[in-house]
Amino acid sequence: MLNNYIRPGDNPDLTKERKTCSFDAEELTRFLCGSAEKVERKREIIRIVAADANFADRIPLDFLAREERIDVQARKCKYLMEKMNDLVTDEDEFIDLANEVFGTDGFPLILHLAVFIPVLQSQAESDLVSEYLPRSMSTQVIGAYAQTEMGHGSNLRELETTATFDRATDEFVINTPTRSATKWWPGNMGKMANHAIVTAQLHIDGKNHGPHNFLVQLRNYDDHMPMRGITVGDIGPKMAINTLDNGFLALDHVRIPRRQMLMKHAKVATNGTYTPPIHSKLNYGSMVFVRAHMIFTQARNLCSAVTIATRYSAVRRQGKIDKSSPEVQVLDYQTQQYRIFPQISRAFAYLFTGLEVKQLYKNAMRGLDEGETDLLPDLHALTSGLKSIVSYNAGLAVEQCRMACGEHGYSDASGLPKLYGLVIAGCTYEGENMVMLQQTARYLMKAVQWAEEGKKLSYSIEFMGKKARGRSTIGMHKGDMERENEAIMESIEHMARRLAVDASNQYKKRITGGDSEERAWNGVTVAMNRASRVYSRLFIIRSFHRRVLSSPHSLREVLTNLFSLYLHYESVDMAHHLLHDGHCSGEQIDYLKSKLNEELIKLRPNAVSLVDSFDQSDRLLNSVLGRRDGNVYDALYEWAKSSELNYTEVLPSFNAHIKGIMEADRAKM
Amino acid sequence: MLNNYIRPGDNPDLTKERKTCSFDAEELTRFLCGSAEKVERKREIIRIVAADANFADRIPLDFLAREERIDVQARKCKYLMEKMNDLVTDEDEFIDLANEVFGTDGFPLILHLAVFIPVLQSQAESDLVSEYLPRSMSTQVIGAYAQTEMGHGSNLRELETTATFDRATDEFVINTPTRSATKWWPGNMGKMANHAIVTAQLHIDGKNHGPHNFLVQLRNYDDHMPMRGITVGDIGPKMAINTLDNGFLALDHVRIPRRQMLMKHAKVATNGTYTPPIHSKLNYGSMVFVRAHMIFTQARNLCSAVTIATRYSAVRRQGKIDKSSPEVQVLDYQTQQYRIFPQISRAFAYLFTGLEVKQLYKNAMRGLDEGETDLLPDLHALTSGLKSIVSYNAGLAVEQCRMACGEHGYSDASGLPKLYGLVIAGCTYEGENMVMLQQTARYLMKAVQWAEEGKKLSYSIEFMGKKARGRSTIGMHKGDMERENEAIMESIEHMARRLAVDASNQYKKRITGGDSEERAWNGVTVAMNRASRVYSRLFIIRSFHRRVLSSPHSLREVLTNLFSLYLHYESVDMAHHLLHDGHCSGEQIDYLKSKLNEELIKLRPNAVSLVDSFDQSDRLLNSVLGRRDGNVYDALYEWAKSSELNYTEVLPSFNAHIKGIMEADRAKM
Repeated sequence: MLNNYIRPGDNPDLTKERKTCSFDAEELTRFLCGSAEKVERKREIIRIVAADANFADRIPLDFLAREERIDVQARKCKYLMEKMNDLVTDEDEFIDLANEVFGTDGFPLILHLAVFIPVLQSQAESDLVSEYLPRSMSTQVIGAYAQTEMGHGSNLRELETTATFDRATDEFVINTPTRSATKWWPGNMGKMANHAIVTAQLHIDGKNHGPHNFLVQLRNYDDHMPMRGITVGDIGPKMAINTLDNGFLALDHVRIPRRQMLMKHAKVATNGTYTPPIHSKLNYGSMVFVRAHMIFTQARNLCSAVTIATRYSAVRRQGKIDKSSPEVQVLDYQTQQYRIFPQISRAFAYLFTGLEVKQLYKNAMRGLDEGETDLLPDLHALTSGLKSIVSYNAGLAVEQCRMACGEHGYSDASGLPKLYGLVIAGCTYEGENMVMLQQTARYLMKAVQWAEEGKKLSYSIEFMGKKARGRSTIGMHKGDMERENEAIMESIEHMARRLAVDASNQYKKRITGGDSEERAWNGVTVAMNRASRVYSRLFIIRSFHRRVLSSPHSLREVLTNLFSLYLHYESVDMAHHLLHDGHCSGEQIDYLKSKLNEELIKLRPNAVSLVDSFDQSDRLLNSVLGRRDGNVYDALYEWAKSSELNYTEVLPSFNAHIKGIMEADRAKM
Repeated sequence: MLNNYIRPGDNPDLTKERKTCSFDAEELTRFLCGSAEKVERKREIIRIVAADANFADRIPLDFLAREERIDVQARKCKYLMEKMNDLVTDEDEFIDLANEVFGTDGFPLILHLAVFIPVLQSQAESDLVSEYLPRSMSTQVIGAYAQTEMGHGSNLRELETTATFDRATDEFVINTPTRSATKWWPGNMGKMANHAIVTAQLHIDGKNHGPHNFLVQLRNYDDHMPMRGITVGDIGPKMAINTLDNGFLALDHVRIPRRQMLMKHAKVATNGTYTPPIHSKLNYGSMVFVRAHMIFTQARNLCSAVTIATRYSAVRRQGKIDKSSPEVQVLDYQTQQYRIFPQISRAFAYLFTGLEVKQLYKNAMRGLDEGETDLLPDLHALTSGLKSIVSYNAGLAVEQCRMACGEHGYSDASGLPKLYGLVIAGCTYEGENMVMLQQTARYLMKAVQWAEEGKKLSYSIEFMGKKARGRSTIGMHKGDMERENEAIMESIEHMARRLAVDASNQYKKRITGGDSEERAWNGVTVAMNRASRVYSRLFIIRSFHRRVLSSPHSLREVLTNLFSLYLHYESVDMAHHLLHDGHCSGEQIDYLKSKLNEELIKLRPNAVSLVDSFDQSDRLLNSVLGRRDGNVYDALYEWAKSSELNYTEVLPSFNAHIKGIMEADRAKM
């Protein structure tokens, strides 16, 4: 048996699917996870969580009001913090554990752990770190990172909060001068945090030195009530992630000692002398890290969505292909395959890209330790573009998965509406996508220039220096898949070059026409963003391809199938640009489409086993439709019985209101 | 002043926008609404609702738990039912009133009024109608339409619920034989309805006559408790529309008198003789009506989304175009215009298409009265395709609007997450989109045949018979916009023809290759659906164009701008197919893109006034960001203060759980 997910009592349709698996699903799990040991350790964590009554839910959390749900997660959070050291041995394991326990709700102290502490460590001077890091690790101090304001998200230079140096007392006065200056959105800030790192304009003697970070206590240690001058609270319900207390914060001339400015890079002396940071790009690193990490997280969430949609589509029987036969599994319909299988290939593509980018990040950081900053601009441009492509397309992909589940995909029972809300948020946080794509485009414009000048090109833009081939060779090596795929990738490189050069020319034309640089740029951003998207998609394709080439021999066939599917799907999706300059002919695009259909058919018997290989527990999936055992209808019924509206046969509100109009009318009759 | 939305105290950026309006916004409102009288009447309803304390909310409903929110809406529902006759004079006004009062929650008895009663009227025999219609109108009877089952949505022929005729007692025995046969999803069925029209397989003497409808009492009149043999309840929370009690229903051998079968068309006599309906397509009408109506409703919801995004983008200032100037309105960025303005044009396109399809429906019904059924197949194919295109693209459009609002678009305060959940549901209900597109494709395949045979072609497929023009004339009439636009539309017609013929050829090739008809169809459905989409988009474009040509002279310029924008946006979006056979050149596509940019710039000064012309009240928009007065930041703050987490400064769950780990750690330190 190549797929060991089969158990007695499973839905026979799923068992049938698992028996048609042509590869070793367990080996694929190991390849995705890194090693057999990591798989084993992850499964141990799953077992521990499943066995511990403190992590169990009496009824599905979907039925709780927001505050009740926060309460349940806070209780688990407390338990987890107390037992953590017994349960896990490193950070990766902690992430697995937190995912398993909290699912899409996320770890309740996530911003404290993942943002507040790292920023404190990397930006504060050592004595402040010594004082606050131990308290933060032990959660006496719970911190938020208060950067975004109601009126400013993307343009940090115009933040309105002020930190004015008072030489007389050696303090900063932190103030919220307008309503729109209210800090808005920081996670953990509404109700959890008792401290925040607050970004504010540093004013000394009437001069503004721009935004800097300051450590401010928000609530006292004793009763957690807000400190004097602090107005703090929750910003209300959102599209998803509602157990997180994204908060607001207004500061009314709050005084903090000078040393609570985070002064590792920029400094203010007692006499008010300001020393700027040596390197303005020092913050690149952490932004790049967060975005590199995001790609991986988005990929993991997409894995959940495709697991749910694929398993359910194998179990769901609806309609007939041959009229004389019984109803078919909906996974047999071409439209359903076209809907779901490309999303499976996307999940793999994004996972592999996430791994590659993490590696690039490590290389860049190693370089930085040796004073080498050359890798950073490439990585910054790349992660900005990838963040944008992956977040939006993962969102669209989750929605395709959700709609592929028909009407039940619309129910919270499927787990998919929450998953969509979680994934699509990635288009906005950590850099709004349109802004991100423009950052990538600015780098691409330099690349066009460098390529013209024959300069050495960094990793992600090497293709800009390749020789143009007038016509695509797609379809000229039929039967040799590797060469065919290379021909497609070369065509995509051609297209990526052409779009970048084209955007550059449009820009130059406007400059020549008398536009200022800024106006010219704003007149061509749509073309710029188009170029950035294709550049990013090319990188994902290349990453996927490299990973397939380095895969174990036994997985090569199934991963090649997945990669070809991805490559053909992406090419057809970008056919407009391939056709535009005559590089590809309509016949070549038709050929890609027919090959794409063949790849769908080839993938069909492995579909369920491929998603099984993501090895996600039922608890993590949190979906009636995506259950490993495929027994969805009974589970759906059980789930619905917990609906808060079913506590009573007759709703109190029915008796209070609707019954009145019924009786009134009966009297009339 | 051409835009009379200006008031003292408004955000000056919005006032500025309203002053640049180049057309009479009030006249556009009248054109959209139908007449000055209708506009006046609608505004009167808005005033009545605004002035009546019974419709007011103490705090925003966003902060209520599901059951509390249902209670509030049920109270308003009761009040509205009692006062309705004083408030409105016809159905259209009632719809306006219900929209104004309930917004995206919808009227709590919507399925009773909009589905149960019409089905009863059109499918029951007159004596059953006489008995139940008055009770239904007076809401003594509240009904649901129980068709969909847990296991079957699209393929009604395989529904599992049975209605077995018992000749001895002259009754039907209605039964749910399996878990998957449980009725699932019908609105109003969970907690509200005391009756349902239940679709079940009609069995007589061991023979199955297929699905028919039966009237079944679910709950008794006195205490609203379920009748014997009835298990009924709510199916739990969903992506949106959570005040609606979508329900489940299981029937355990429930007996009903024979006369409670809806026997206007098919009949069962006392002796068990079955008489089938005369015309199998008699249900076409109601499906077509619902889908025609859906197009209009989706368009209205999209109007809300673009109103919110446009107004907020005029108020939001972020970043600079010229470094020396102050921060700009984000509506000045090309990317933002490219994000929002096409959605404004889509809203108009769908509104106008909705109006046109409603008219076609009326014509078809008039024909039907005279025994003329020829118009029905065309209208059926058309509404199936349009339903699919409009629901999906309106969903994407709402998301673009939401993301255009940056981080605040993610908050429920924006109103946009709920709007998305509401709109995107349209992809699934009233016919799953993939299935819909295939229905359209089957008709298109006939059209290909008819065109080849030189037969007369109905309204929506006339273009199939037009002569092919080898090369597009796009760009050959520069300066003559009307001729340019006609050239684009001809190219889209060319493309629609080509894709239909191409899909037909692919299908025939498979048949020739030995496939069964069904297998051949399943092998080409992706191509079929592609053809259906272009056919539907062509119809929307033509409808928009016709409406512009019939518009008042004073609106012609702004509507032409909108139409051109829509036409160019759609063409660029479909450029792949225009380029595919060499019909268009890359230069022509570039020309379309440059014209599209020009249309964006032309629309800019009218953007706010165009969305103002939808004349949607702040109550209906239910969005802090979309307010008429543009004073968004204060409103956002006020809104958030109502968050249930802000009732106490310190959350009880914080004290119960988190405080514990803080104190424990403090002791350690």
